[in-house]
Amino acid sequence: MPVLMLIRHGQSAWNLENRFTGWMDVNLTAEGEAQAVKAGGLIAGEGLAFTEAFTSMQTRAIRTLWLALAAMDRCWLPETKSWRLNERHYGALTGLDKAETAARHGDEQVRIWRRSYDTPPPPLAEDDPRHPVNDIRYAGIPRELLPATESLKTTLERVLPFWDGSIVPALKQGNVLVSAHGNSLRAIVKHLFGLDEAGIMAVEIPTGNPLLIELSDDLVPVAVRYLDADRAQPLPPLP
Amino acid sequence: MPVLMLIRHGQSAWNLENRFTGWMDVNLTAEGEAQAVKAGGLIAGEGLAFTEAFTSMQTRAIRTLWLALAAMDRCWLPETKSWRLNERHYGALTGLDKAETAARHGDEQVRIWRRSYDTPPPPLAEDDPRHPVNDIRYAGIPRELLPATESLKTTLERVLPFWDGSIVPALKQGNVLVSAHGNSLRAIVKHLFGLDEAGIMAVEIPTGNPLLIELSDDLVPVAVRYLDADRAQPLPPLP
Repeated sequence: MPVLMLIRHGQSAWNLENRFTGWMDVNLTAEGEAQAVKAGGLIAGEGLAFTEAFTSMQTRAIRTLWLALAAMDRCWLPETKSWRLNERHYGALTGLDKAETAARHGDEQVRIWRRSYDTPPPPLAEDDPRHPVNDIRYAGIPRELLPATESLKTTLERVLPFWDGSIVPALKQGNVLVSAHGNSLRAIVKHLFGLDEAGIMAVEIPTGNPLLIELSDDLVPVAVRYLDADRAQPLPPLP
Repeated sequence: MPVLMLIRHGQSAWNLENRFTGWMDVNLTAEGEAQAVKAGGLIAGEGLAFTEAFTSMQTRAIRTLWLALAAMDRCWLPETKSWRLNERHYGALTGLDKAETAARHGDEQVRIWRRSYDTPPPPLAEDDPRHPVNDIRYAGIPRELLPATESLKTTLERVLPFWDGSIVPALKQGNVLVSAHGNSLRAIVKHLFGLDEAGIMAVEIPTGNPLLIELSDDLVPVAVRYLDADRAQPLPPLP
């Protein structure tokens, strides 16, 4: 019966500044670092042995994993970083101030971009410096796979091959840690718990609060809880 | 023409305490962390693109890599951790005070254990808690591969399969970063520069001072220098 431990990265600079972040590579704040260390302590307190850790190619999730592993005295766990665990790509909204964007496009349009399941913001042009084809870290990835914008639906579609191809095989070997982002973790939770579109929009994983999911041997969730009960949010219902 | 960048981990707690460390998992001191950050800044200053990073399964080398990668803004580089890059195993001397050991066994015996090429200290018994078979991090490694003691010669013999099987293929793809230990790095340098036993004993890589090795396409060193010239030690002679 493997355990899947999900961690959403600690607070980042742009969480504070209230800008659309997405694939911008914003670092943790000091508060975000402290959240990651605390998350590692909570995970260590469960006394579980982990066999592998996964994270995105974005600094805030990677450093959250590193700080948690150090707090767990498990720096030596194998780590795999994949762009498929990155945050949802916010397209042309990337880097914009949320209030300014609402003033320009209207509250209702911004609400749709943020909260609808399948409406992506306008795409970035390929010559825009914010487009992933212009970021050296993605140089090894086929251009046609790299998004210019995403909805939660298309985020889930690019997370799934990594879930099936890398995380599921690791769960067959033992307990797994995933440090990622609000929407890439939502994609995993939607798939794993079999939630519908409204169901997943109601799940908001707090930053730095590990979500412990106990799985049956055929990887169906049988129990789920946050390790920091004081900062818990509504849990996804068990299938 | 790939570049191989070698970093010896920053100062650890036991460097300070003057104890035989080997495979004991001692953490960096604050000074060691600062050395790692500085090393990352020096590497970033070279303006090189790296394709992969390698480290040991020991906290002091892993955290040196992480701190350097963060200083380089390259947290996203693929990392591989291998026990084959661990420090030389000091056998029954592991954890002992160097001065006490000299008082018990004599200065000459300790000098031989520390400085001879092929004389290992007495081995650890398999039921000794310091033996690697009793450390959960090595649970996935065949018992018969895990050392109970090592000389520099046997250290080199276990580093080489990883050099050939993982680092050489990465160097065929681009520049490579290796964060490891005094003796596992010596093993690599001896092999790469074709040094004899006396030649490698004269090479002592300082902590946190990156050693930049330019290689020909068939991986023969053509240039070598320390990035922190003020803390340089004698360089290995080019083949």
